Amino acid sequence: MALASCLPPLSLLFLFLTLGISGVHSSPTLSPSAAMQSLAQKRKPAMDAKLPFTAHFFPQQLDHFTFRPKAYHVFYQKYLINSTYWDQGPVHTAPIFVYTGNEGNIEWFAANTGFMLDIAPKFKALLVFIEHRFYGDSLPFGNDSYESAEELGYLTSTQALADYAVLIRSLKHNLSAEASPVVVFGGSYGGMLAAWFRLKYPHITIGALASSAPILQFDHIVPWSSFYDGVSQDFKDESINCFEVIKHSWDELMAVGAKKGGMLELTKTFRACKKLQSVYSVRDWLWTAFVYTAMIDYPTPANFLTPLPAYPVKEMCRIIDGFPAGEDILIKVFSAASLYYNYSSTNSCFDIENGSDPHGLHGWDWQACTEMVMPMTSSNESMFPPSTYDYKEFGDQCMTKYEVRPRPHWITTEYGGNKIELVLKRFGSNIIFSNGMRDPWSRGGVLKNISSSIIALVTPLGAHHLDFRAATKDDPKWLKEQRETEVKIIQGWIKQYYEDLRKSSKT
Amino acid sequence: MALASCLPPLSLLFLFLTLGISGVHSSPTLSPSAAMQSLAQKRKPAMDAKLPFTAHFFPQQLDHFTFRPKAYHVFYQKYLINSTYWDQGPVHTAPIFVYTGNEGNIEWFAANTGFMLDIAPKFKALLVFIEHRFYGDSLPFGNDSYESAEELGYLTSTQALADYAVLIRSLKHNLSAEASPVVVFGGSYGGMLAAWFRLKYPHITIGALASSAPILQFDHIVPWSSFYDGVSQDFKDESINCFEVIKHSWDELMAVGAKKGGMLELTKTFRACKKLQSVYSVRDWLWTAFVYTAMIDYPTPANFLTPLPAYPVKEMCRIIDGFPAGEDILIKVFSAASLYYNYSSTNSCFDIENGSDPHGLHGWDWQACTEMVMPMTSSNESMFPPSTYDYKEFGDQCMTKYEVRPRPHWITTEYGGNKIELVLKRFGSNIIFSNGMRDPWSRGGVLKNISSSIIALVTPLGAHHLDFRAATKDDPKWLKEQRETEVKIIQGWIKQYYEDLRKSSKT
Repeated sequence: MALASCLPPLSLLFLFLTLGISGVHSSPTLSPSAAMQSLAQKRKPAMDAKLPFTAHFFPQQLDHFTFRPKAYHVFYQKYLINSTYWDQGPVHTAPIFVYTGNEGNIEWFAANTGFMLDIAPKFKALLVFIEHRFYGDSLPFGNDSYESAEELGYLTSTQALADYAVLIRSLKHNLSAEASPVVVFGGSYGGMLAAWFRLKYPHITIGALASSAPILQFDHIVPWSSFYDGVSQDFKDESINCFEVIKHSWDELMAVGAKKGGMLELTKTFRACKKLQSVYSVRDWLWTAFVYTAMIDYPTPANFLTPLPAYPVKEMCRIIDGFPAGEDILIKVFSAASLYYNYSSTNSCFDIENGSDPHGLHGWDWQACTEMVMPMTSSNESMFPPSTYDYKEFGDQCMTKYEVRPRPHWITTEYGGNKIELVLKRFGSNIIFSNGMRDPWSRGGVLKNISSSIIALVTPLGAHHLDFRAATKDDPKWLKEQRETEVKIIQGWIKQYYEDLRKSSKT
Repeated sequence: MALASCLPPLSLLFLFLTLGISGVHSSPTLSPSAAMQSLAQKRKPAMDAKLPFTAHFFPQQLDHFTFRPKAYHVFYQKYLINSTYWDQGPVHTAPIFVYTGNEGNIEWFAANTGFMLDIAPKFKALLVFIEHRFYGDSLPFGNDSYESAEELGYLTSTQALADYAVLIRSLKHNLSAEASPVVVFGGSYGGMLAAWFRLKYPHITIGALASSAPILQFDHIVPWSSFYDGVSQDFKDESINCFEVIKHSWDELMAVGAKKGGMLELTKTFRACKKLQSVYSVRDWLWTAFVYTAMIDYPTPANFLTPLPAYPVKEMCRIIDGFPAGEDILIKVFSAASLYYNYSSTNSCFDIENGSDPHGLHGWDWQACTEMVMPMTSSNESMFPPSTYDYKEFGDQCMTKYEVRPRPHWITTEYGGNKIELVLKRFGSNIIFSNGMRDPWSRGGVLKNISSSIIALVTPLGAHHLDFRAATKDDPKWLKEQRETEVKIIQGWIKQYYEDLRKSSKT
């Protein structure tokens, strides 16, 4: 068996990972579908009960880029508003902060972007969170939205950006806020959207704060191994032993899985609720735990994907390093992964192989199979088993699944990315790319200043859009400073905008 | 009868005018369809015989912005290449000059953009002229392309820009010219496309020369009356009498048309080949002559839409002013219009009401009925009969014709335009907007510098993309200087690009 085939199909793996950006793994399951469903179920009451927003729906055009009769189909796009801190009307001039929603329901992003609520009073800003088409309650064809490529075909980043443009313009008009500057915020895929929105619609937003936006994770801009190298580095940074234990666990796992009675042994070691059928599900279960924990290696206790203590990678390695050297390597990695799956709950067993269909249609999986093609491999230097990536093979999988082929170079054709520093040094302005280097996605991000107003804010100890989380009393100094810098830069954009506006109205 | 209804439907009028930008009125007919057909017929041999280009076809994606199965339909987009002056391969670094084709076949634009050929040797530039989808030989559905909104729906500016992006990227790759800087050129609607291409695809082009691009002719950015006010001003500038004669001719025309035997009288006065049925066709015939002549009021003899002498507006007014004051006003305007319709030929009669269907499906008419909504009225100050414009009425006409409604604010949502100086002062670079003030479209253009690299070049005596025409020995000094300035600015972009590239490859 070739090494590559030892891995789950990368499209699925990618799906896991990327859904994880916005998904909630509330139960110890690998299924992205279950994760998304549980997300949707969980978030709605949370929003209604606690989030300080009112929900609205905007009649949105299905297809902005053709004029076929079908293009005129109208769907209702959800958005959330908080006007507590906005300036008094009837004519507004204070800023509007818009979150450009990504792959999940918008309440989830509102709940995890407390930063915007925290800074709204200082700016007297109106807050708007717009849901991405085809997610949450913004399904263009209701329950049929994920039926086939005929419907899903309209789920693209370009259509989403146009949605935001149309909605924001209409909102400003209806609120008599034509003069209000709009700043867009987004994290992860939402961060890509925020940055691209500033690049494509500078007439609608004066600037973008793109947190943990891996806009360079396409084509060959960054090495394909960078993501898993990043995860691995996080663990290596904590402890060489920890890294080595994980790195060697995969062979041991395969060996046990292959021997007679091995699956029963694994079922016991990994406390599976039901007898395990495939060694690969165990591998994925571990893989997921390590990857997600690296992504959300926050400096304070948090509950983003799942409840975790502060610096959870350090905690995982503490668990691994705490065992005597001679202990079973699979016990070590199981115990480490348990931190991710079972930190606050008291699961006596884990549902490692659940029954949901991993081929179920889901928004991000579709996006990954069409335009969001981010090749990922693991190198010999990583702590994961080596793996390769092949466009053809990936395309064939997508064809089988959706009956469409990916356009793997479309994102860089539409938005750029190759030699981005050359291009944006001479074009564009007012974008902050913030990245925490503990987050493996940071390696696909913009990590150096490009110009005087296209800025990279990098925190060595930050994780996946950490800056967007609500401030807590335990936040480290560097995190507070990062957020203060962001506020200062945005204040600068707004000040300049008002000055330009004043000057122009005089002429 | 309301004044507004005295005019031909504005959509048609607009169609005439805008088709006229690229259309050839080789025979004295008002029908845009006939004009376009004659254009296509005329240009093909001309191209084959004389134009120094080779023709190629690129397999292009029907729909860049969805992933429905239909989106993958491939059509063949025509483009022309001249590599006479390009640097020697196999790896190229010299510039690529791309003309972003507009509403007509690409040979026509190649034939009328001699400027690019003139300057290519200085830059050692590769020349590429790309045909706009749905025009010329680039019909996505062959002869069925204009069948209905189901096909025509894909005829949009956004899709056209994406075509250019995909084609250019592929071409550079195939020619081993990844490092070659691309500069885009376009005139009229092609100029809008060039400017928008630089704004949306800065990673694919380092700069744009947009000649006579009325990107502000949307919404309420410029007064709706500006276009016809511009035409009128051209005539007024030549002679108040000329302006007044034309201004008063419309009432006289209507009066004669309304009286008994009036149509026969008009048939004689206007030397119509067949007995005239409608006074409105005469009005349109005159209207068209005045508008087009203003647009192409070139300082040298030229044959763009039709053969004309140098400064043809001056010539028209000379004709009008040459008559004794008491002469029949309709004789005066007929004689003036004859300059346009009959300058070099010896027509003994004019085919004022031809048999072709004015409601025939044509590309630009579709575009005007969907996204290219440029409201136009004529004010009391103009030399045309007063007219109004109503979005609702226009929309109803388009609905009747194509079964789709215009999206009149889409262009400004997608590309901006409102307060453009505020936006682009802080965003973007390397665009030249050139306009000749004799061209009524100039009033919808960018006429003031926006930043140090978003530049307006305005010539008081220039006309519709005059700078793009091949140099002639009789070109006035100001025209030579304008072209020299354009060359100098483009040289600056290219120099800066090479410097940036060199620096970046060192790091």
